[in-house]
Amino acid sequence: MSEIDETHDPARTSWVESANGHPDFPIQNLPLGVFSVGKQEPRIGVAIGEMIFDLKGASAAGLLDDHWKLALGLSTLNAWFTHGPDDARELRRKLSGLLSDERYRPSAEPHLVRAATVEMHLPCDIHDYTDFYVGIHHATNVGRQFRPDNPLLPNYKYVPIGYHGRASSVRVSGTPVVRPKGQRKPPDAEAPDYGPSRRLDYELELGIFIRCGNELGNTIPIGEAGGHIAGYCLLNDWSARDLQAWEYQPLGPFLAKNFLTSISPWMVTAEALAPFRKAMPPRPEGDPAPLPYLLDEADQAAGGLGIELAVTLETARMRAAGAEPHVLSKGEAATAMYWSAAQIVTHHASNGCNLQPGDLIGTGTLSTAEESGLGSLLEISQGGKAPITLPGGETRSFLEDGDELTLWARCIADGAVPIGFGSCTGRILPAT
Amino acid sequence: MSEIDETHDPARTSWVESANGHPDFPIQNLPLGVFSVGKQEPRIGVAIGEMIFDLKGASAAGLLDDHWKLALGLSTLNAWFTHGPDDARELRRKLSGLLSDERYRPSAEPHLVRAATVEMHLPCDIHDYTDFYVGIHHATNVGRQFRPDNPLLPNYKYVPIGYHGRASSVRVSGTPVVRPKGQRKPPDAEAPDYGPSRRLDYELELGIFIRCGNELGNTIPIGEAGGHIAGYCLLNDWSARDLQAWEYQPLGPFLAKNFLTSISPWMVTAEALAPFRKAMPPRPEGDPAPLPYLLDEADQAAGGLGIELAVTLETARMRAAGAEPHVLSKGEAATAMYWSAAQIVTHHASNGCNLQPGDLIGTGTLSTAEESGLGSLLEISQGGKAPITLPGGETRSFLEDGDELTLWARCIADGAVPIGFGSCTGRILPAT
Repeated sequence: MSEIDETHDPARTSWVESANGHPDFPIQNLPLGVFSVGKQEPRIGVAIGEMIFDLKGASAAGLLDDHWKLALGLSTLNAWFTHGPDDARELRRKLSGLLSDERYRPSAEPHLVRAATVEMHLPCDIHDYTDFYVGIHHATNVGRQFRPDNPLLPNYKYVPIGYHGRASSVRVSGTPVVRPKGQRKPPDAEAPDYGPSRRLDYELELGIFIRCGNELGNTIPIGEAGGHIAGYCLLNDWSARDLQAWEYQPLGPFLAKNFLTSISPWMVTAEALAPFRKAMPPRPEGDPAPLPYLLDEADQAAGGLGIELAVTLETARMRAAGAEPHVLSKGEAATAMYWSAAQIVTHHASNGCNLQPGDLIGTGTLSTAEESGLGSLLEISQGGKAPITLPGGETRSFLEDGDELTLWARCIADGAVPIGFGSCTGRILPAT
Repeated sequence: MSEIDETHDPARTSWVESANGHPDFPIQNLPLGVFSVGKQEPRIGVAIGEMIFDLKGASAAGLLDDHWKLALGLSTLNAWFTHGPDDARELRRKLSGLLSDERYRPSAEPHLVRAATVEMHLPCDIHDYTDFYVGIHHATNVGRQFRPDNPLLPNYKYVPIGYHGRASSVRVSGTPVVRPKGQRKPPDAEAPDYGPSRRLDYELELGIFIRCGNELGNTIPIGEAGGHIAGYCLLNDWSARDLQAWEYQPLGPFLAKNFLTSISPWMVTAEALAPFRKAMPPRPEGDPAPLPYLLDEADQAAGGLGIELAVTLETARMRAAGAEPHVLSKGEAATAMYWSAAQIVTHHASNGCNLQPGDLIGTGTLSTAEESGLGSLLEISQGGKAPITLPGGETRSFLEDGDELTLWARCIADGAVPIGFGSCTGRILPAT
């Protein structure tokens, strides 16, 4: 866990005026991302209000530590991640000082770029992408559709369940979602056919970026796992439910998922989240304790993510009418997660599997226990049996062409300036 | 499919004497790999008998086409794969000429390195690794252990089943296999514990390397899939069966597999395999035809891989006694596979998932219908219920520390010079 220090001071403001009171990117956030201007090479930057502070430029100008220059001058964050948690904290302190203290304004201001004018990229080269399944309410809701009396399998409360996803099709927010084709077999059909998915869905998740990682054959003790997490993003695990139902046994989801995974462009650092950590929710009476390799007092006390999540839907008709997007769900990550981010990391490496800087790990769908906090249409529409009616009168069981789906996240805590993740969005295009 | 041309001429010999009659690497093979000498940067090379022909050196010396120089001068084959099938065929013709015609000997010989003196590396940077499950006898044998009356799930004969594996832990043959730890829950135990796997196994597979690939959102028509395959290697999907049984539901195998996947260092090119292609085995009476997107006449006629596979085991005691390794199984890939390599590639991209140059795809375990051709100890020992007795009197249900397991592959066909894959080996080390 990262400590709370002067960079979190609610009294601190920035000379970048748009940062003060900014819902996502006040000076207390300082998320990292990769942007490009025109046809220039992508660069690492920090979001501050409506602006981006160019770390390559600032580094080259001598505003940051010299031994960071190589890593911060690249087009991805992978090399920076190898610098580890101490340098990450030090960079945060440095940036917080540069962007708050008027004395640095003359030298720093030339390295600001207006965010509205840039193109955002993936923050790093993702070698491996793994998706977990730690949202216990989601697992229960989905399990109930298959096994009404016994929704959770016996391993769920011992094993942080995860599976490998496709790294090549992870894309940054805004990438169009071409409706995938695949084998569809309705329950009453004798044989499957191949065509556009009829049950296209989203999954509300958080993404975890790995900072240092481990060598093949080594493990990551639970007490050290937090230090291996660079930060978090929003993640939409787009899912074709009809393809999934037909293909997933016995080896798990594959083409139902790997046509696209979208992530928000700004990585909110582990350091920025320090004021928003909370205790893991107590395990229900009768649940087993985590096995010793997954159990850590500090993690139990502060492994919870106090991140408020929301999902909105804007249909083509709503867009044409200028109507507000409809809120599909709202809920908090901490209450949705049965396993902490540290437990996810430790479990992933517990057999000697090597995690590498820039690896992306999805939490799994984060549904809360309430009906207002369900993280997928599969749950909201009960597998399509209970379509929802939108304000304009349209109904939805699953996503239609033209729909734009957006994930949001904000952190709010007593005595802290709220910070946000920005958004992760995608619009559905017809199958080609 | 690649055509048979003068490079396959059985009368052709090499001035590299060790190539003539070499069981694996005669001049008709010419597999590609990446090697290093001492502390030098890894280079691309071609195996020829007991020697390696250094393609970076040969290219720099002007012995190969100038527009290949950049790609052949790198430390991985990824860039070369983007050159596509025409250049692959042309490189093969060029190499076959250089290494067979005495006139080229003076200029080519300085670029030969003795294979015994080099270190081999992964042939390419593997961005994504996917493992399929197209060995129908394996799927049936494994399924029978769980569902005696209904071993194959209803989707098996429609969907080439696959799942994502871990790219970071793919290693070249010879990498030690550290026994993984994980959650083990014997059927009679009330709860799992964490410790070294007691049921460590291998899986005999072939690996497929992707040459060009497709853009996200595009597909690869079945008639074009063969052109996207650069070549093949041996692949051992090491598996911890106790971890697997406990963790795999509902999202598939994860820590049971991702501690290590070993591949043989030499990629036998699609071009070299041309004389050994055969018809896909006819589908059993009553089986559905492949859906149209997976059906291609040419692929049905020549999509089968005439590759003879074998597995040997050498225990520590056998090694100490100087005894011959024991043959665990022997069989042919073509008869083991329900789906062809082209069908695998087309299915993988059929939802718009992008395949990239250097992606690795495993076929899944290739067991034949015979008891002598089973590709895993899970099958050979019937899940541990029928341990085998080795020639020296030792017994095995699963792999023990000190065991060395080796996969082999050779191609034999009338009128063709036999070629081989070399081997893929790994020795089990105790858990750390």
